[in-house]
Amino acid sequence: VRQTVGDLGERALIERIRARVPSPPDWVLVGIGDDAAVLEPAPNTLDVQTTDALIEGIHFDRAYVSAFDVGHKALAVNLSDLAAMGAMPRAALLSLGLPASWPVADFDDLLGGLLTLAAQYRVALVGGNIARSPGPLVVNVTAVGSVKPRRVLCRGGARPGDDLYVTGSVGAAVAGFASCRARAGRQAASGSSGTGGGPGTGAEGESPAMARSEERFRRPDPRVRFGVLLGRNRAASACVDLSDGLADAVRQVAGASGTGAVVDASLVPVNEGARQWFEGRGEDPLEAALAGGEDYELLFTLSPRRRRLAAAVASLAGDLAVTRIGTITADPRVVLRRDGRDSLLPEGFVHFR
Amino acid sequence: VRQTVGDLGERALIERIRARVPSPPDWVLVGIGDDAAVLEPAPNTLDVQTTDALIEGIHFDRAYVSAFDVGHKALAVNLSDLAAMGAMPRAALLSLGLPASWPVADFDDLLGGLLTLAAQYRVALVGGNIARSPGPLVVNVTAVGSVKPRRVLCRGGARPGDDLYVTGSVGAAVAGFASCRARAGRQAASGSSGTGGGPGTGAEGESPAMARSEERFRRPDPRVRFGVLLGRNRAASACVDLSDGLADAVRQVAGASGTGAVVDASLVPVNEGARQWFEGRGEDPLEAALAGGEDYELLFTLSPRRRRLAAAVASLAGDLAVTRIGTITADPRVVLRRDGRDSLLPEGFVHFR
Repeated sequence: VRQTVGDLGERALIERIRARVPSPPDWVLVGIGDDAAVLEPAPNTLDVQTTDALIEGIHFDRAYVSAFDVGHKALAVNLSDLAAMGAMPRAALLSLGLPASWPVADFDDLLGGLLTLAAQYRVALVGGNIARSPGPLVVNVTAVGSVKPRRVLCRGGARPGDDLYVTGSVGAAVAGFASCRARAGRQAASGSSGTGGGPGTGAEGESPAMARSEERFRRPDPRVRFGVLLGRNRAASACVDLSDGLADAVRQVAGASGTGAVVDASLVPVNEGARQWFEGRGEDPLEAALAGGEDYELLFTLSPRRRRLAAAVASLAGDLAVTRIGTITADPRVVLRRDGRDSLLPEGFVHFR
Repeated sequence: VRQTVGDLGERALIERIRARVPSPPDWVLVGIGDDAAVLEPAPNTLDVQTTDALIEGIHFDRAYVSAFDVGHKALAVNLSDLAAMGAMPRAALLSLGLPASWPVADFDDLLGGLLTLAAQYRVALVGGNIARSPGPLVVNVTAVGSVKPRRVLCRGGARPGDDLYVTGSVGAAVAGFASCRARAGRQAASGSSGTGGGPGTGAEGESPAMARSEERFRRPDPRVRFGVLLGRNRAASACVDLSDGLADAVRQVAGASGTGAVVDASLVPVNEGARQWFEGRGEDPLEAALAGGEDYELLFTLSPRRRRLAAAVASLAGDLAVTRIGTITADPRVVLRRDGRDSLLPEGFVHFR
């Protein structure tokens, strides 16, 4: 039987690539494996580069996400990668694979979602490509940003004893996704309009917390300002975004830093909508929130000697909550401490399988 | 009836985007509409950025193109865009949408094709993304290059009286494509191995010229060195690559420069394999070569006062032929002069329809 890429999964495939790529030249400061690549085209000038695709049927379903949302999200996930490196976004390239039957009105909406977010963060759309797709809609964005030397936030810099922090709350996207999908299912069953679930269609009887979770799923707000401030401050020893969930992010930082970590379950800021959604279904909100992807919050580590800086960073964050959730350890295990008992932190969300 | 993106086509969609993008900041030297974008992240430092996707069933068919070829071509088309700006390629990002059932052996071959070409031009693969595709294989590459200020080659700099030049020969890819497809059809009809057409399967009785045309279709050789030398030399007033064919490239330069052009049919260097292929089928090789896309040669313009530079550039080109094919005119028509008669140059190849 021939092995397929589905057998291996994303991480193993990335490792396969990394193993074959020759050692990069001096001017590649960060290569394959972090949130984004960092290049030094000229002395004291760093370019940060990232690329990411959203594919219909895998990353989004038009039954409960509007074209505007898709455009927003395609840029947001890339800005989140730049933020996780401490980089200020500067420009974006858009590569579209479009089914020929796609309505021009949807094309315009997708562009509207992307350009609205671009304007918010002063990102210039400078180029791209348009091709036909015989299958799903494919939206690939490349984002370019700047960061000063020694302000780059990598995932491999955590040290035993460092504190683990997360921005915002976790689990909003996985609960918002479940809620949107359930509503689309109900609408399909009752025969109402198939394109429901767009912004503003708000389900009847839905709680405000749940509506906010849906909004975070549909239109994630990348933590651009916070990531840049964290880098400028030189406070953090490591940083990643939560694209694949909190559990995965902690594993990424620990793995890249050659450490372990302990996450204190009682400290994890589970999103209120997620708490309502999962408790209402007899499921454990914490487990769902730890494994749920697409939150696009930032996880970072701080030396306890820098706690004063942490307070400064938190005040810079404005309305954004910043919560200490655990500690980096010399012991290489990645542990969840809950009600006094330790267990291995569950595996994160894996897009590819 | 709702208008679809297929009704509009690629160029109209790009115009639709351009019309909505706010005027770019100062540091965007070249934005939407050229082969690549040129950014100035710091004084005297220019970044050139381009992104391009190959989509299975649109840009390639696995029946006659190997996974290695796809990897090669996905990088080559982007290096060609950088070359057309006079930029030295530096780094690449790879974003893959993979059907889960895709064999890992093919994944490795695709990577082999990309990395072999990357090594040839010292391009560092610095990052990317892997996602699952529920439909076709999608390979999106972003390439980053460098160019010195005032060495950038744009498409809009041609002036009436400038000479038009093209590198290499034209029509190789369209003939190579037709030949590969015909062989795949014969093999399917005779029931032989479905994955024929990979490199080295060379059809029996095929002429050496035709074999070279197939090779140029499968593994185009981007004119990286020539583009960089042309930029350094400051010889050319405008430059584009022939991704969508010679006729389209001439129209692009004339349109962006606010000029017309006359192409002398007797001077166009029609590829020898293309001549054999189309003459053998009673078709006009020149027309096929003018409209045929994917040659990835460079079209550029030179002031006649710089003819001495042109000779210098030609000698720098080494084995690569450089041929004068016509003139830029003040009259805005884009004309083909053949046997003493003028007609409008045919429309180029359009990927999207």
